[in-house]
Order: sequence, then C-alpha cells, then structure tokens
Amino acid sequence: MAISSGAIPGDIPSPAAPGVTAGVDLGGTKCLGVALDEAGSVVGEHRLATPVGMEAIVETIVAVATALGSPAAVGVGAPGLVDVDGVLRFAPNLPGVIDLPLRTAIEARMPGTRVRIENDASAAGWGEVRLGAAKGASHALMVTLGTGIGGGIITGGELLRGASGFAGEIGHMVVDPHGPLCSCGKRGCWERLASGGGLGRLAREAAVADRRSRMVELAGGDPEDVRGEHVTRAAGEGDAHAGAVMERFAWWVALGLANLTALFDPEKIVLGGGLVAAGEVLLAPVRASFVALVEGGEHRPEVAIVAATLGERAGAIGAALLARQERLAPDRAAGG
Amino acid sequence: MAISSGAIPGDIPSPAAPGVTAGVDLGGTKCLGVALDEAGSVVGEHRLATPVGMEAIVETIVAVATALGSPAAVGVGAPGLVDVDGVLRFAPNLPGVIDLPLRTAIEARMPGTRVRIENDASAAGWGEVRLGAAKGASHALMVTLGTGIGGGIITGGELLRGASGFAGEIGHMVVDPHGPLCSCGKRGCWERLASGGGLGRLAREAAVADRRSRMVELAGGDPEDVRGEHVTRAAGEGDAHAGAVMERFAWWVALGLANLTALFDPEKIVLGGGLVAAGEVLLAPVRASFVALVEGGEHRPEVAIVAATLGERAGAIGAALLARQERLAPDRAAGG
Repeated sequence: MAISSGAIPGDIPSPAAPGVTAGVDLGGTKCLGVALDEAGSVVGEHRLATPVGMEAIVETIVAVATALGSPAAVGVGAPGLVDVDGVLRFAPNLPGVIDLPLRTAIEARMPGTRVRIENDASAAGWGEVRLGAAKGASHALMVTLGTGIGGGIITGGELLRGASGFAGEIGHMVVDPHGPLCSCGKRGCWERLASGGGLGRLAREAAVADRRSRMVELAGGDPEDVRGEHVTRAAGEGDAHAGAVMERFAWWVALGLANLTALFDPEKIVLGGGLVAAGEVLLAPVRASFVALVEGGEHRPEVAIVAATLGERAGAIGAALLARQERLAPDRAAGG
Repeated sequence: MAISSGAIPGDIPSPAAPGVTAGVDLGGTKCLGVALDEAGSVVGEHRLATPVGMEAIVETIVAVATALGSPAAVGVGAPGLVDVDGVLRFAPNLPGVIDLPLRTAIEARMPGTRVRIENDASAAGWGEVRLGAAKGASHALMVTLGTGIGGGIITGGELLRGASGFAGEIGHMVVDPHGPLCSCGKRGCWERLASGGGLGRLAREAAVADRRSRMVELAGGDPEDVRGEHVTRAAGEGDAHAGAVMERFAWWVALGLANLTALFDPEKIVLGGGLVAAGEVLLAPVRASFVALVEGGEHRPEVAIVAATLGERAGAIGAALLARQERLAPDRAAGG
C-alpha cells in the first residue's frame, strides 16, 4: 500500500462480502469506513488516520474502501464544499486541500465502481433520515454541533444539494453581526456562537467573573482553560454556574434552529456531533428556547428536536446509502 | 353579487374564454386576479378591494375568479401561513383572519374547479421562475421587499413547501438579536431591518443627525416624516446622505441574501416588492455587499441578483400556474 497511515486499533474484521456498498467519512483526523449490506446493516468497519496531502487522502479513502470488500459503490462524506461533480472545492479542516477531484480520482483507482461524493454533514443527515433518528421523515434537518456546525437538509424526501452542491452551509448563517469574528471573515456566524467553541467562550466569560465554579475546578483551576466538555460535565453534575452557561448556549442553538424552521418547515431536527453526548443537559434547554423562538409556533405542528442515533458512523452510512442509489451517468458508463 | 367592494378602475376587460386558469393574489388592500391562457399569456385581469371578514374575503376571491371566465382551475396567493390543505392559518395583514379554509370554501362555491392555495410570495417566486426574471432556473429565490419581506424558494425545479406548507418564511430569520422588536415578538428579524420599514428607520436616524438632507426636504421638513420612498428618490437624484443610507440598508439586504445563499445555494435571486422600483440605486449596493458577505464566494459560481419582471401580477400568475398543475386528489375527485 502506498500510504503510511496506520490502522487505528478497534477495527471490526472486514469481510470480503460481495454486493456491499462502502461509505467513507473523511474527517480532519480519521477516515472512517463502513460496509453496508443490501439490508442496510453495517457488516464491516475500517479506519485509517487522515494523512496530509491530496494524493495521500485519495489513497487512504481507496485503502479504506477496498479493505471493506469489493464494493459495487463507494460513497464519501467530505468536510467542506463538495460540488455536483464530486470535487471537494474547499475544505478548511484539511490543510492544503483545494479543488480535489475526489470522484474521478477514486473512479480511476477503482474501475467500474460507482462513486458519490457528498458533504459530510449532508451524508450524515441522509443516514439519520434513512436509518437513524429521523427515519421515515420527508422534511428533516441534521445539525452537527462540534468544533463547527454542519448541516444536512432533507426536503420532500430528497437531500437538498442546491445549484452547485453547496446547500446546507448552515454554520455560516450570520445571526449576530456584532458577534465574534469567524474564520470566513464575517462576524457572528452561527457556528461561532453555537458550536463547541462557542460554548467554551461563554463558559470562560462566566468563569472569569466567578472562579468558584465547578467548571474551573474541572479545567484545573484556570478559567482560561475552561472548554465545552467542562461545562457539559459540570452541568450534568448539577452545578448552577454551568447550568446557567448551558442555558445561554442553548438559546443560541435554538435561535439558529428557529431560523432554519422558518425557512425549511421540517418535521424533525436531528442534533448530532460531539456536543450531543451531553444529552438532556443540552437538549432540554434547547427545546425550551426553541418553543419561545420559533415563528408562528402556535400555528404549526410541534417540531421534534432529537439526538442523532447513528453516532460517528452517520456520515459513512449516509454516504454509502447515497452511493448505492447513484446511477452510472451515461458518460461514466461509457468510460468505465 | 353578495359583496359590496367596488371594482378598482383600470381593469382589463375580461373575456369569458374557455380553458383559462385564474390566479388571484389576495393582498392586504386589493385582490388582484389574472386569467392565463394555455400558453401562459395573461388574457384578462380583474381586481376588487379586499374586504374585512373571512366570509367576505372568500366571496371576493370567487367574484374575481368568475369575472375572469369559467376557469378550470383557480390558484390563490395568500399573505400568511398557508398549510398543505389550503388553510390560511395565520395572516397578520388581514385583520380577523385565522384558520380560514380557503381551498374548501372556494371549491364549495365553484364546484368541479381545481383550487390551489399558496403563500403569496411563494406564488410570486413560482411565477418569476416559470415566466419571469428567473425563467428556466432550477434553484432560485424570490425575495419580496415591501412593508415586510416575503420569500419563495425553488429547489430542484420545485417550490419548497416544507412539512406543513410553511417553508420560506425568510422575513423572520433573526439576523440581529440586539435589533429592533418585530411584531412576532423576537428582536432583529430580517424584515425589521431590510424592508421598507427598515429603510425608513435608518433614514430617520441619519436625518435626525443631519437635517440638511434632501430626504428631509422631500419629506416636508421634519426628519421624523422621512420614509423609504424619500430615501430612494433622494438617492436616485444623487444626494450623498441618501446614498449613504442606501448603502447601509443594502448591507442588511445582502446579509440576509448571503445567509440564504449559504443555505440554499441558488443560481439566481429575484428581488421583488415595492422597494425594487428603486432599481439600480438599490440593486448595485446590494450586489456589492453580497459579494463581500457570501460564504466561499471565490469557490462558487456567481449568484445573479436581478429585479423581478412580472411586477404586481407575479403572485397571481404564479398561483394560476400552480393551480394548473394541480391534480384533483382522489377524495376531491370523488366528492366534486
């Protein structure tokens, strides 16, 4: 194998099953693959560290996919702007990656395989709608709350892709033009306020004002070291300071969810990403603020806000499902 | 006729053409109907004042529609939350209207006629995409800038309706939680900042600070009387104060358009509503701010921002087109 990234311990032994579809979630640190059988069950899993460099990334995806058998189709969830031709145009969390033609590069290395590239949060949303927390919903939103915020939008039973494939960049919806600067150059993007980073910022402001908080203790004594995980843990233990921070944070999460509800009118909103591990400590205040913020709340059916159920595999599972329904385009069928 | 609302002068004589579709735009002050022939040409127009009261409103819509011939289908664009069953659930600009079952009420009075009810801005968006400024686009946004902001969203060639029919309530996307109060109870809804009312507010702030402006002169001398139309007119005459107000205002318009672009990834954005009469005085600074605000601008194709071309008829034309494609539901076919 041309790549040096080692396998991460904990792999499920991968069968060389025929007829499986591979889904690969390309993340900033790891490349997680699953094999789905025709019933939609995960029958294999393989992961490698994400290397640096566009060529190495392609080789790693191919290595993960081929380790899962001889998949008839490969789907990839990629972190960034993926266009409708399967080019990863822009990926802020993958240094040096720009205009990477993932689809054609993988097809060249896996002749005869159908390949579908999708934004990672969109793939995760598709997975949750088909097999997870929003199973059966025709109108649903997937919102991943992690370092940033990702979005997958399902309308009328279809994944919303937009003219170029860039739809669903919900993290860069500006919700406070007086707010903190974002890496995109704007102020007050939702992901600066309602992601893990946003939670940490709110917590440090509160901790500096009152050092006796359990959050500060968990962080080792320095308010400047308080991170999102210290807040969720302290809030889970019943700490009042941390609970107050969670309520302020939940308001920002709910504000964005209310905006998205005004625009998309979903049946269900699935929250995923690392922050959702906090469970009801986060979900309960989000739901309470959402009810107060959603437009015309008394005239619309309740919008269910639920935690994702597919966990870290959501993106890979969704990508596999998308790849399976992909048809060979005429030009590709002729060429492949 | 059971209604007393008089015809507004200027009607086009209405033919009793067979095979026409009627579209009716129910507004806060007038009820404007058009007859479309099979080629999509407007072959008749009729308007009546919008009366007060749910029964009178239904009778007026029926009167407008029947004055346009014997339409096989009737579409209505209504100002508010319209559910998928054709019930106008909530209409802040029509006093006393709540949970009005427009579809069944019109069907009862026009047996055998296919009836489709849609939000007015959604209907206008559909008209512009099929026959107007965004003709041929599969992914487009219609944004009506008037007293408030309305939205019509077309994705994948279809009108976005959402789970309950309430999608596209773009005016109530919060873009500044520190901003002015909205009638919906929240602060900083986009329509409080980027509508005609928002323009007037910005202008009055500027006029109070400097009374020598041409805007104040046009308003009759009192800064508190400055309205949106004084700003656009003064800016059109080259007044620097008014031009500065237009730039600030255009930034708020562009902020919302950039948010919507991150979410929907459209090819084209059509601006309609009364403010668009200002033409390039508004459009040029909106385009300039949009380029600076749109996420990943260097990685995506240019999003065209254009003025609507169907004018005040857009909603009626779009409603007629939607009604024409409506199929009789099995239960309705059996009943009618």
